[in-house]
Formats: sequence, C-alpha cells, structure tokens
Amino acid sequence: MSNASRIYTAALVVIGDEILSGRTHDKNIAQVAAWLQIQGIRLKEVRVVADETPAIVEAVNTLRARNDYLFTTGGIGPTHDDITVDAIAEALGVPVIVHPEARAILEDYYTTRGGLTEARLRMARTPEGASLIPNRYTGAPGIHAENVFIMAGVPSITAGMLDALTGTLEGGAPLLSETLGCWVGESEVAELLRATEKAYVNCQIGSYPFWGEGRTGANFVIRSTDAGELAACTQALVEGLRALGRDAVPGGI
Amino acid sequence: MSNASRIYTAALVVIGDEILSGRTHDKNIAQVAAWLQIQGIRLKEVRVVADETPAIVEAVNTLRARNDYLFTTGGIGPTHDDITVDAIAEALGVPVIVHPEARAILEDYYTTRGGLTEARLRMARTPEGASLIPNRYTGAPGIHAENVFIMAGVPSITAGMLDALTGTLEGGAPLLSETLGCWVGESEVAELLRATEKAYVNCQIGSYPFWGEGRTGANFVIRSTDAGELAACTQALVEGLRALGRDAVPGGI
Repeated sequence: MSNASRIYTAALVVIGDEILSGRTHDKNIAQVAAWLQIQGIRLKEVRVVADETPAIVEAVNTLRARNDYLFTTGGIGPTHDDITVDAIAEALGVPVIVHPEARAILEDYYTTRGGLTEARLRMARTPEGASLIPNRYTGAPGIHAENVFIMAGVPSITAGMLDALTGTLEGGAPLLSETLGCWVGESEVAELLRATEKAYVNCQIGSYPFWGEGRTGANFVIRSTDAGELAACTQALVEGLRALGRDAVPGGI
Repeated sequence: MSNASRIYTAALVVIGDEILSGRTHDKNIAQVAAWLQIQGIRLKEVRVVADETPAIVEAVNTLRARNDYLFTTGGIGPTHDDITVDAIAEALGVPVIVHPEARAILEDYYTTRGGLTEARLRMARTPEGASLIPNRYTGAPGIHAENVFIMAGVPSITAGMLDALTGTLEGGAPLLSETLGCWVGESEVAELLRATEKAYVNCQIGSYPFWGEGRTGANFVIRSTDAGELAACTQALVEGLRALGRDAVPGGI
C-alpha cells in the first residue's frame, strides 16, 4: 500500500539488558531499518532500553505519538524478565488478556513438545484488543496493538515476523538511493558535496569515510524520493569528482 | 577511579542517517556498552537519531540530565552532514569555537597530507570550554564538554578514543556476571529462574534462548555488584537445573 503524497515514519524500541551490557550485539536495528525502507516508511529514531517497565512505557508512548508506527523487539519470551507485553499494555492503558487465538497456536505447537505449561502460556498474553503477527519458527506470535508492533528479540524470529508484515502497512514513496565510491579523503570534497546537495533540494548526500589498502576513501550516498532528481544529482556528483581528477565507482567501494 | 557506594550511569546517542537507513550496521553500541561495564558505569539507554539538529539536541539534553555521563558517536567529520558539534553546543547553550589545541593537532597531522584546508579545519571546532579526547589514528580529536563525550562514528576510531578515556572517569563497583549455558527450553525453567532471582535480591538473572544443533538451549546471565552473592546465586541455579535433570555449562554455550 503506497500513498506517495505523504511521508510515513516509524520508530523502534529495542528492549533488553543484554544489549545495554554489551553481551549481545544487536542485529534488529539494521534489519528493521532495511525492511522499513522497502515498505516506504522512514525509521526516524531508535531507542535501546532496559528490561524495566517505566523505561519501556516512556519510550513507547513518546515515540508512538510522533510516528505512524512503533516497533519493539525483545522481551516476549516465557521467563520472568520478559515484561514487554505488560509494559506496552500499561502504555496503551489496557489490561493484559490471554489471547484465545495465541493460546490455540501454542497448544497446537506444544502438543508434540511437552504440552502447554504455565510458563509457555505467558507467550499467549497480549494487550486487550490486539491482533497477532505470525511466527513460523517457534509458535509464539508477535503482537499488533494500535500502532505498535511487538516482535521477538531473536533476530531470525524477528525476520519471520517482518516477512509476515511485508506489504500490510501503508507507506509512502520509498526513499531511493544511489551510492558512489571514491578513493579520496572526504575533506577534499567537502565543498563539492555541500554545493551539490544545495543544488538539488530534494536530495540528501551522506558521506561515509573508510580506510583500506593503505588509502583513504569514502562512499557518498545520495537519497531522494524523486528518481529523476536522484539521477541528476548523482550525475552532477560524478562530474564534480571528475573535475577534481577523481573517478567515482558506481555502487560504492 | 571507583566509588563503590553509588551507581554511575551513562547514555549513548548514536548520530547518523546511515544507521537509520539500514545501510550501516552499528558497531558502537556494543563496544561502548562493553567498555562502560569495565569502567563500572552502567549504560542505561541508547538512542539512534538522524543527522538533524533538533533530534540531537533533544536526545542529548534529556539523557545528560538523567545520567552521569553522555556519549555520542558520529557526525564529527569534515563534511556538510557532520553537525554534531554545532548541535551539542546548542544543547549546552555555548558558542562553537575553533579549539587552538585541536587546530595545532590538525596542522601537524596534515603537514604531510596536503595541508589544513577549510573543510579539515571544521574538525577543530568544539563547544566553548571543551577539552579534547586524543585520536591516534586520524588526528581529528574527540571532544569532552561538561558531562558529554563526543566521539567518532567510525568504530576503529571510536575504539581509540575509548582507550584514551580508560580509567579517567569516576565509576562505581563494576557489575559482575556469570553465565551458565544449558540445553533446555527456557519455558521449562521459567519458574526456577524466577524463584532463584527472588531468593537473591542483589542479583538479576537474564535468560537468552537460542537454537542450534537441532536442539533448544538458553544462556542464563547472573549479574550482581556483590561477588559473594553472585557466586551463591550461580551455585543455586546450577543445583536447581540439576534437580530438573539438566547440566549447566559454566561460561555458557
């Protein structure tokens, strides 16, 4: 679903002490960010918060008020430190219920896996009024309540939930991008970048330096929702680099 | 420097459109988180914000007010999209100056690299009253202003700046941890985990499931600032798992 006339935005709240302690390297920010781009939705802000109810409630309510969509990852398993559902129900001002459809999914999933214990039944709890996001890997579903999408912390399960949501959210024109790589110090082209961006008002140019093979280089990413302006801006940057005696590598280095 | 009688906290603001677009996978959250643990400082919250002044100002001022330290990564290079210094000066309510020491460092660094251009001189700009964080790799220093530590976005350069700061910040008792791995579904031990954490009030137990070798497992991370209680809680969990017929793997799986 696309409505090119307006910009749709999203925020992400990553919930988990394991990220803040440095024990686990987050992979969900990058995968949610890349997925949103394809849906035509801009990720505006990410917050990583601890497994603490007030921190989750504050982040969820602040960010869902100023974005079209809010996504969360983490904290929906069966153990005592999984408090995401309770915190989001509190944020939404609704009670937590055992969702009948989620209970049926879990009963089915655990039939051949030792049965639905009290701990496992925790994964059928949702804020009242929620619908479910299918989880093809481990039964326990994600949850959609108002404009909040509650997903797993394990990246492979989150990926399945994103896959289930693909194409179901209203988005705008996707942000298009072109990348040019160049073996040049970014300070040598700072003025060129600034002037080129200024000349193409519907484009943004990002500059990402790197060091490799004993040399200094940078990738320049030009972004726009307008394909024609994107192409023109990219071409202008290629020519500007050439005028400085530098070859641009399409697609980046 | 350690003051075991109180808890020191920090927050991190990751600045950059390239993270929010999914183009670049952030590595600074994990490295800053792990480094802070060693300093005896707890990372309480992370925000990833766009290259937009209001977003940076809001995040910096909110988080520095409620934490001992605030770290930022990204946006301190020579190009037009590097607006971190200006935004943080605005957040602190001070003007931006060209820092004489930073200018001298850059003049020296660029003597054999084409000279100090106007774009490169941008990297000598700091909020008024700031001191510098050495950067042994590319000259351009990080910046320390009030309780804000402004660091590079490129992870290897950030690592060097963290190294330069090691041992210079006042921290409390480091949060100690033990990890136990176990081939068990976390829903089977949810009650054991809950009861064990309740019995050891100065310990927190996190449960991190995984799937591998066709089996279900989990790592349990026990955290405490009290070494004795940490050992007792860990031992209690080992015995609790054994009572359920499960062997714990010290150090995790």
